[in-house]
Amino acid sequence: MPELRFNVITKDWVIIARERAKRPDQFALPKKEELPLPQFDPSCPFCPGNESHTEPEIARLGDNKGWRVRVMPNKYPALSPHGERTRSNEGMRISMNGVGLHEVIVDHRQHDMVFALMPPPDIEAVLRMYRQRYEECRKDERLEAIIIFKNHGESAGSSVIHTHSQLAATPVVTFQTRMRLEDAIRFYDQMGKCIFCQTMEEELSAKVRILHESKHFIAFHPYAALSPFHTWIFPRRHTPSFELATDEELVDLASTLKLLLARLYYGLNDPPFNYTIRSIPSRDRNTEYYHWYLSIIPRVTKTAGFEMGSGMYINSALPEESAEFLRSVQIPNLA
Amino acid sequence: MPELRFNVITKDWVIIARERAKRPDQFALPKKEELPLPQFDPSCPFCPGNESHTEPEIARLGDNKGWRVRVMPNKYPALSPHGERTRSNEGMRISMNGVGLHEVIVDHRQHDMVFALMPPPDIEAVLRMYRQRYEECRKDERLEAIIIFKNHGESAGSSVIHTHSQLAATPVVTFQTRMRLEDAIRFYDQMGKCIFCQTMEEELSAKVRILHESKHFIAFHPYAALSPFHTWIFPRRHTPSFELATDEELVDLASTLKLLLARLYYGLNDPPFNYTIRSIPSRDRNTEYYHWYLSIIPRVTKTAGFEMGSGMYINSALPEESAEFLRSVQIPNLA
Repeated sequence: MPELRFNVITKDWVIIARERAKRPDQFALPKKEELPLPQFDPSCPFCPGNESHTEPEIARLGDNKGWRVRVMPNKYPALSPHGERTRSNEGMRISMNGVGLHEVIVDHRQHDMVFALMPPPDIEAVLRMYRQRYEECRKDERLEAIIIFKNHGESAGSSVIHTHSQLAATPVVTFQTRMRLEDAIRFYDQMGKCIFCQTMEEELSAKVRILHESKHFIAFHPYAALSPFHTWIFPRRHTPSFELATDEELVDLASTLKLLLARLYYGLNDPPFNYTIRSIPSRDRNTEYYHWYLSIIPRVTKTAGFEMGSGMYINSALPEESAEFLRSVQIPNLA
Repeated sequence: MPELRFNVITKDWVIIARERAKRPDQFALPKKEELPLPQFDPSCPFCPGNESHTEPEIARLGDNKGWRVRVMPNKYPALSPHGERTRSNEGMRISMNGVGLHEVIVDHRQHDMVFALMPPPDIEAVLRMYRQRYEECRKDERLEAIIIFKNHGESAGSSVIHTHSQLAATPVVTFQTRMRLEDAIRFYDQMGKCIFCQTMEEELSAKVRILHESKHFIAFHPYAALSPFHTWIFPRRHTPSFELATDEELVDLASTLKLLLARLYYGLNDPPFNYTIRSIPSRDRNTEYYHWYLSIIPRVTKTAGFEMGSGMYINSALPEESAEFLRSVQIPNLA
């Protein structure tokens, strides 16, 4: 008998399809047969020496030996930084011009590097750049929401191999975000606490879905994980926006993220994945009812007509089994 | 400058990414190089003669020459027909057992057949079976929503080549469905008419996104199409559930659906697609504010971290251009 679980934070029903379920290791990809990537690719626009092949640089971290992290506008931006927000509301046709930011963050100099293999201080540098760009972009009063995300692997939507992240700042708050916020507010009004803090407390007490506990973060598979290996990293400290993370928290997050991505890398043979950092809408950051978090979504299954038509998710992995599996993955030379 | 459009029915913001936009014909897949499929495949469980290889038959249409359309339970069901709905609400862990129906409808006897090439009376037979199964499944009081859908092509989630559709009946109404319903009710309360009827009226008057008008149906790209070639077919008659379609309407829908799928088949070289039929939750069918429709989603682009994190869609095709392109596609031997 399949089990239906309700995700209280996303408001989604998930079918945990036990009859269709695979063992966690059956989600592993076949070993790659391609040649390993070079450390430097002369044709890669993100490799050192090719800085002039990208859009003009917005920011960098680095020293006199060169940059460690670089930021520039996306060459094919989904949103444009120019102009004011203008609306047109004609009957059922509601539109506005696509004002917003869409930036690329080159995470590392080395062409063949990935977070799973990177020394944590290099990841920390990327996270500091995220925070710096977040702070900077929030000053733009045309923007309502700032999202930081990463696409890894072609089937997760990445078109450039060299490791990079992206920042998008949108001129509207979406219905999805607004609905989740409204529900978090109602929970706060009714229960007197944050729905994320409550979830974290219950996960810590249940233990079975926990992937990692550090001083400042808890990583776990949600009880109603929307897809196999869907992972949430919550800061223990109740704070609504990534921008408010302290230096010490970023050091911790770098190690936590590295550990989790390395377990996916070694346990499932480098699966494609996306991660996103969700914060409260950017004008609204001092609140008691929202809690930022990072969500990792390995792309090991596909959605189809069932999900589209029903609005439900089908997860063919049991979160408790996936967590046990990932906790047991051995990582060579973990820095 | 990209344009943001709001889909008043789904409540989604869509970025119409003009800078990234392709011409409609650039979405066409390369011509297939595989051998054509045989009319009959002895190893296919859905081919005539292999009826004993499927789960026990639930229903069929046919005559003394054999079946035309066949229905059976899905061999790997996401939901199970056995038992009562039982709930467990413990803190943040809300679950129920996965009661529901998940059926497969074999659309046609012939292994290499697709809707794009099928004579409309054969499609009409499938639609009549949809209606019959819908009526039958609605009698089950454990079920709240019935969705009929089709996955065509591997990247649209189809694992069996032989043309088939599916029916899913779920024991809950999802948050997505409930939100859309609530908004449709508010629109009705405020404006005194159905939001779908109003949309259809405006599309008929704007003309530019219309794909086809028949006696009983209007097919068009939504103003804020969520992805390239996203198509809606609305019945002209205000009625909340597919189940209430008349015989005459089904004859018309068969020709309309064939025409639209044939244009995709010839215009874009048989792209993978999903379609879903959305009706009001099944216990609630006599209302003024909901309107059933069929949604076709060609799978010609991928979603990634941007969409996941922001809750927005990016559509790299302009609906008006796509409509013009599809209207011009020539279909050989259109029955």
